[in-house]
Amino acid sequence: MRKRIPEATIRRLTHYLRCIEFIKETGAEILQSRDLAAFCSISDSLVRRDLSYFGEFGTKGVGYSINDLEKHIKKILGIDKIKKVGLAGVGNIGMALLNFPLLKNGFKIEAAFDIKEDLIGKRVNGVPIFHENEMVKIFRDKKLEIGIIAVPQHAAADVANTMIEGGVKGILSFALIQCPLKKKIPIRYIEIAAELEILSYEIEKEE
Amino acid sequence: MRKRIPEATIRRLTHYLRCIEFIKETGAEILQSRDLAAFCSISDSLVRRDLSYFGEFGTKGVGYSINDLEKHIKKILGIDKIKKVGLAGVGNIGMALLNFPLLKNGFKIEAAFDIKEDLIGKRVNGVPIFHENEMVKIFRDKKLEIGIIAVPQHAAADVANTMIEGGVKGILSFALIQCPLKKKIPIRYIEIAAELEILSYEIEKEE
Repeated sequence: MRKRIPEATIRRLTHYLRCIEFIKETGAEILQSRDLAAFCSISDSLVRRDLSYFGEFGTKGVGYSINDLEKHIKKILGIDKIKKVGLAGVGNIGMALLNFPLLKNGFKIEAAFDIKEDLIGKRVNGVPIFHENEMVKIFRDKKLEIGIIAVPQHAAADVANTMIEGGVKGILSFALIQCPLKKKIPIRYIEIAAELEILSYEIEKEE
Repeated sequence: MRKRIPEATIRRLTHYLRCIEFIKETGAEILQSRDLAAFCSISDSLVRRDLSYFGEFGTKGVGYSINDLEKHIKKILGIDKIKKVGLAGVGNIGMALLNFPLLKNGFKIEAAFDIKEDLIGKRVNGVPIFHENEMVKIFRDKKLEIGIIAVPQHAAADVANTMIEGGVKGILSFALIQCPLKKKIPIRYIEIAAELEILSYEIEKEE
């Protein structure tokens, strides 16, 4: 296990990647820490401190080669090689994800799963949709490392445990998983309703 | 401005709401703090501490009336009245949101905005789609309190400032907003690529 880096630093690394994607489109090849700072509305010294966690890269007074910096950050985040993803649930959110250009971020959805018969056997954006009862086998066969859960909340825990049985290494879930899982693996949540509710609280608090 | 409550407590209140929605479907009318604790995989005492932030409600040994607890939490979160929402960007994510049952959480998307001519004038799930150049007027006319940004990243800051000009009180953005905004209002992010990247980091760290 590597040394512990604050999550806020890791999140800023992802913002640096967004900045790099953005600046690359202009054709630039060199980037200064102040470019990253301006993009993220943070201080120059914070950028330099974040990057120093991972050793020196960049030349003082010259800046960073954009390609080197991108490679370096992707290596830290473990996306220097494509990570294979299985998606459970092809409803509104699942369908949006299948049409989302995740591959440019280093993630490839290799298989999707649902229980609705009219979806099974179809492809969306090239990704085949299987019945959920094939999930363990396909996660194992295709060596899917990441599972995305976009099923209704009542089904989320079962789906998570099924993915774990299939050998998944980490889960991103759009539904709250209620019970403890068979095995402890990294789980992250995207809770759309909760974010709106917290925003509503913050708005009321200001008034 | 009210007293400061930790964000973790506010987030757990949203989880309690999920639990209440879940338990209401069983027809139950009374809830114990241990039901909330089990649902969220946290301790009973943490639940009681969270709820005590907002004064005593519930009867010792009897538990909470589900309806009262729901009303109380919704009041704290400012969703005891429906909050009106404007959505910018009717792409994959925007379309998913228009089809998402946000109303049961207390949020009503009243208008959506895009720049693609073939979308403008249409309705999705009853919500009219306008051209983005009507955003200020419609935010003002309809008194939209919350803005959801689901446009490409390079357009996000302009859209945020336009919403602010329209009088929005808080923003939920799926794209990183790069520059400082005209006015400081609560902003929350849902960054799908970043969540996957952080998950990837956590997976690598475990190995």
